Amino acid sequence: MRLLLINPNISHSVTALIEAEARRSASPGTGITMQTAEFGVAYIETRFEALIGAYATAQLAAQHHGGHDAVIIAAFGDPGLGGLREALPIPVLGLSESALASACLLGNRFSIIAISQRIQAWYREVVHANGLTPRLASIRALDQPLASIGAVQDDHAQALRRLCERAVDEDGAEVIILAGAPLAGLARALRGELPVPVVDGVSSAVRHAETLVALQPGKASRGSFAPPPAKPNQGLPPALQALLGG
Amino acid sequence: MRLLLINPNISHSVTALIEAEARRSASPGTGITMQTAEFGVAYIETRFEALIGAYATAQLAAQHHGGHDAVIIAAFGDPGLGGLREALPIPVLGLSESALASACLLGNRFSIIAISQRIQAWYREVVHANGLTPRLASIRALDQPLASIGAVQDDHAQALRRLCERAVDEDGAEVIILAGAPLAGLARALRGELPVPVVDGVSSAVRHAETLVALQPGKASRGSFAPPPAKPNQGLPPALQALLGG
Amino acid sequence: MRLLLINPNISHSVTALIEAEARRSASPGTGITMQTAEFGVAYIETRFEALIGAYATAQLAAQHHGGHDAVIIAAFGDPGLGGLREALPIPVLGLSESALASACLLGNRFSIIAISQRIQAWYREVVHANGLTPRLASIRALDQPLASIGAVQDDHAQALRRLCERAVDEDGAEVIILAGAPLAGLARALRGELPVPVVDGVSSAVRHAETLVALQPGKASRGSFAPPPAKPNQGLPPALQALLGG
Amino acid sequence: MRLLLINPNISHSVTALIEAEARRSASPGTGITMQTAEFGVAYIETRFEALIGAYATAQLAAQHHGGHDAVIIAAFGDPGLGGLREALPIPVLGLSESALASACLLGNRFSIIAISQRIQAWYREVVHANGLTPRLASIRALDQPLASIGAVQDDHAQALRRLCERAVDEDGAEVIILAGAPLAGLARALRGELPVPVVDGVSSAVRHAETLVALQPGKASRGSFAPPPAKPNQGLPPALQALLGG
Amino acid sequence: MRLLLINPNISHSVTALIEAEARRSASPGTGITMQTAEFGVAYIETRFEALIGAYATAQLAAQHHGGHDAVIIAAFGDPGLGGLREALPIPVLGLSESALASACLLGNRFSIIAISQRIQAWYREVVHANGLTPRLASIRALDQPLASIGAVQDDHAQALRRLCERAVDEDGAEVIILAGAPLAGLARALRGELPVPVVDGVSSAVRHAETLVALQPGKASRGSFAPPPAKPNQGLPPALQALLGG
Amino acid sequence: MRLLLINPNISHSVTALIEAEARRSASPGTGITMQTAEFGVAYIETRFEALIGAYATAQLAAQHHGGHDAVIIAAFGDPGLGGLREALPIPVLGLSESALASACLLGNRFSIIAISQRIQAWYREVVHANGLTPRLASIRALDQPLASIGAVQDDHAQALRRLCERAVDEDGAEVIILAGAPLAGLARALRGELPVPVVDGVSSAVRHAETLVALQPGKASRGSFAPPPAKPNQGLPPALQALLGG
Repeated sequence: MRLLLINPNISHSVTALIEAEARRSASPGTGITMQTAEFGVAYIETRFEALIGAYATAQLAAQHHGGHDAVIIAAFGDPGLGGLREALPIPVLGLSESALASACLLGNRFSIIAISQRIQAWYREVVHANGLTPRLASIRALDQPLASIGAVQDDHAQALRRLCERAVDEDGAEVIILAGAPLAGLARALRGELPVPVVDGVSSAVRHAETLVALQPGKASRGSFAPPPAKPNQGLPPALQALLGG
Repeated sequence: MRLLLINPNISHSVTALIEAEARRSASPGTGITMQTAEFGVAYIETRFEALIGAYATAQLAAQHHGGHDAVIIAAFGDPGLGGLREALPIPVLGLSESALASACLLGNRFSIIAISQRIQAWYREVVHANGLTPRLASIRALDQPLASIGAVQDDHAQALRRLCERAVDEDGAEVIILAGAPLAGLARALRGELPVPVVDGVSSAVRHAETLVALQPGKASRGSFAPPPAKPNQGLPPALQALLGG
Repeated sequence: MRLLLINPNISHSVTALIEAEARRSASPGTGITMQTAEFGVAYIETRFEALIGAYATAQLAAQHHGGHDAVIIAAFGDPGLGGLREALPIPVLGLSESALASACLLGNRFSIIAISQRIQAWYREVVHANGLTPRLASIRALDQPLASIGAVQDDHAQALRRLCERAVDEDGAEVIILAGAPLAGLARALRGELPVPVVDGVSSAVRHAETLVALQPGKASRGSFAPPPAKPNQGLPPALQALLGG
Repeated sequence: MRLLLINPNISHSVTALIEAEARRSASPGTGITMQTAEFGVAYIETRFEALIGAYATAQLAAQHHGGHDAVIIAAFGDPGLGGLREALPIPVLGLSESALASACLLGNRFSIIAISQRIQAWYREVVHANGLTPRLASIRALDQPLASIGAVQDDHAQALRRLCERAVDEDGAEVIILAGAPLAGLARALRGELPVPVVDGVSSAVRHAETLVALQPGKASRGSFAPPPAKPNQGLPPALQALLGG
Repeated sequence: MRLLLINPNISHSVTALIEAEARRSASPGTGITMQTAEFGVAYIETRFEALIGAYATAQLAAQHHGGHDAVIIAAFGDPGLGGLREALPIPVLGLSESALASACLLGNRFSIIAISQRIQAWYREVVHANGLTPRLASIRALDQPLASIGAVQDDHAQALRRLCERAVDEDGAEVIILAGAPLAGLARALRGELPVPVVDGVSSAVRHAETLVALQPGKASRGSFAPPPAKPNQGLPPALQALLGG
Repeated sequence: MRLLLINPNISHSVTALIEAEARRSASPGTGITMQTAEFGVAYIETRFEALIGAYATAQLAAQHHGGHDAVIIAAFGDPGLGGLREALPIPVLGLSESALASACLLGNRFSIIAISQRIQAWYREVVHANGLTPRLASIRALDQPLASIGAVQDDHAQALRRLCERAVDEDGAEVIILAGAPLAGLARALRGELPVPVVDGVSSAVRHAETLVALQPGKASRGSFAPPPAKPNQGLPPALQALLGG
């Protein structure tokens, strides 16, 4: 089995974090391919950056999904997820929805711990789009500048742990989601140190992707996740055009 | 006052429909600039096509918003709306949210009449993202192939009217929204012929844009609709890069 | 175009505030007629006072709507709105729904700033009735007695601004609604001084009324906003009786 | 114990139906006082008629509540309920909320059977205002003209029973609410003939009023159901003015 | 009329509190039978304890409901309620749903005051299952160990009253529910001392049970609250087997 | 890795179906232990039967979880799930929540196909308890008697397939969940024959259990899924008593 993970951002340091956690999480026999966005920003914390990341991800997915069994959009917020789920012939998963799926199997109400104040509004909208607002206990976030996006979990270790503790004690969180690819692997590092289960998006996505590949639920041929109907198009990169049947 | 309307699709016939209705709806003294996506598909009915349309719209908005007082994303579904609202220094409106705002001032529950079966799931998600699902009476759609996207409202006049009637009589619609830029102007043509108020996205967006320009509510400088914080980026078209402060 | 604005309360000082902001907001060529409730209370902050204000408004609307193109119920909370929307042959708008419509075009989540602690519960119910609770970030209110209802925005300028700041910083408000006719015009005064867009009910209602008059969406002849079916009635003021077809 | 039941409409034939069911339902020792609106319409099926009925009810309640232990607003839709709950020193109940409270003790999802098509939209809003939309299986209604409002349950006996059956079999109703004062007593007549429990608003309200009087939960002195704060008022009937502390 | 109250826990001291409040609340002529769980825990504050309490309650209800007109599950959280409502030929009520029904007749938004921090999550789920989350202002709870479950309301009188005050002043509670059988009777003791109406589960359940017996709404013979369809079973206590038609 | 699957019902034929699908779905190296309820009914389709099944499951889980890495409650509806998640030191999963988690990774809106009309109301409540009602397209069910619970999927193959087709075409289902242990394995048999992805509870639960064991998110030591606090208990089977710290 071979999984394609796409970092929708340009930060190779974050790609390395994602890859490391993906390899630690994958079952024996699962291969991991990494791609990093060729254009975009260092990390996504706004809707505008997500718009750009979605397009960058779509291009990479269109070009590289061949030879893979599933695609993972490796940014919290899942930029481009719905569209690629329609267009690709294989399962597509996002970090957010994967973390949410894991969290829902561990408790009723979860809190999300994030890396910047700004990012919280977008995460709230993502939870709403997933229909899970009633189970959201809170979103809490770091409030300091991030000197290096690849070193967030080291630079802010104490602050992140305090946010987790407060989510449990003040917000009633029964599960913690450590959100954002820059925190990939932190859940593993905190094992046994937090009072409730802790979920990581990358490892969740890798394992859920393996599950979907194993279960073979089938690709939609009717309904809203079937491939887009053929219609005139123009000006698209060849790989995207190919997905549109062009 | 000058409004920039961007058709996120490549169909110049639809741009012409949008422009005609925009000019009919605008107040005296309001100028209209039209832009048509340089790449993409003939019309959006899937999440994947919306992803592409969002990026095409962002590029046009970045290039051309100078000298305008507001931007209108002229496709139902509002591809790219949240992101552009952050990034641009002037108000940005979408056809969906504008039609919903009008509908909410005319009754409690509305139905949406759409041009294809496939498009309905996406519209449902758009209403959910707007938080208005409790007021959605139904979505009804044509179920025949569209020979010419610029002539839908003529080719399917009877069927569209029947869908409106059924929404009122069977679904309890108190307002009808005629959805999709290809139906621009149809509400005007049906004036007085339907048993409930009828709303059009283009004319709603033009008038609401004028209202926001007149009221000058201000651009966010804090919170999640402030411009994205500066951070490293690469590989973007110059206009997009400029919006990112690059 | 001629708009009828009805102050559901007896305070002529508030009528003057409403009128001033209405005239500042109206397009050239839009005429403004003001009416003040002949019976009722100084300002509405409870459900009981709203019940009285609704009846006072209905009487004035029935008597005076002739010769106007739209009616505006000029109190936050929109007393009598649903009923008058059924009964009158022209569009009827309320300050709350108009401010909500504007806010929804400027951001996802809004906070409401109000003039008294007591009024908050009723406003919360109004937002719920509009189906927009998921987008409500918070309601915050003054907690001092109001010496003069016509001078609230001057007497409490600093406190009102602080409430706005806290709604943005602590509650995640992306838009601020300054609620209540006694605050009419304050949004204009605060332009450029708050970190998110600010919405005012009076100016929103005036502009949205102009929009509905311009778009001519039509009056319901079927469904729940058609005029009430004829049936026996007695004891009503002649103008109300006339609306009932009596 | 003495209960004041107010028919917000002018139909003495309906008052007689209400009174008969109230007397059949009341515990020994509970006295019943009936009042009929002095102005208004024959029966309420629109928001506009409810607005009028609310004011008529408020006047009667203000004049006659002395010497009673609780007030019942004897129309489905509960016109004026929130306001009178604030203003009166004794419990106030409505037929809708009382029927809903009974239904919630008998099953999870209920259907409402109503006397006219038009009335359904308003009832849906009432259920929403009570926060119980998730438990509403359906609203079904007669679709024939009502020759005599006092004889609806006799004239349409078969049709009403069929609506109940369909609500159970097609909509999943676990409880049936027979809505509207003109149907008072019908639940008693249908006892044992329907496949699920049947609830009546009048008998529910009478028994729940007795319960509240017996339990003495107390009248709010703080919060949004405390009496309205004193403020200037004018032009009100003396009884209403007295409730405002005037 | 004869009511069977079942304490799902093994604490006879709590049974005594329940019985005392039930007798104080019952109408003349209403007989009270008490049963205490033969197995289980001292009081329920977790889902696991509720699972056990539900089974203990089912056994007692199956054995003892004969000769009674209604059954009350006398623990907040209503363990076993849905199942017993299906299986028994008479009305079954729980303390939670009964308190919620009373609260909904006294105000819009209620707070629940509970005896332990741990119990809050379960209560929140119970409110959600009742579909009333939109009306929940808050849940507040004691944070001290309970030396004696039968003496909680005496040992913690001051703390409980403070929780009530804070729910009103900080959370906007319009009604207070004192939750949990160990607090039975406290609402009566606090009469007149709190600023909003106060509701007790035991007295609410007793009076609502009397109401349902009096109204005779009927037992479901179709739909999801009809008795379970006959099917093979084994290994059950005879009384449970009898309810399954065995 | 070793998983304990508990059939909450007494039907060994269903246990065999569950076991077969569990073994087909498990990864190499995952061992499967089956337990069948020692008391209860042939299959659960009511809340009352679920109450019994929950207690039977709790006893088996308490007795047999030692030596296993996770427990699966192998009935749709997940009887006893919340309680056992608190009480056991290892992950506990249910078929419903596992199928829902899979479905949420494959599309937005899902339909549930069930084996009896009666069972639908309970399933609806389960979806509500999982907070996923907004994503539920429909529940459809067989309407014929089940001659043999172990042969449902063979006896009703055509009818089940027709229900799936209608859910897609009429209800907008984007994913199908085949619900109930008696349908275990049917999704595998239907692979490639339905127009949307199909999900099975048993295989989903087995794979998600493996995922949770692999990710080691940790057991709650605080909050509402920590083990129940110690308190007096009596009369319980030794294994249950042991879970309570007795």
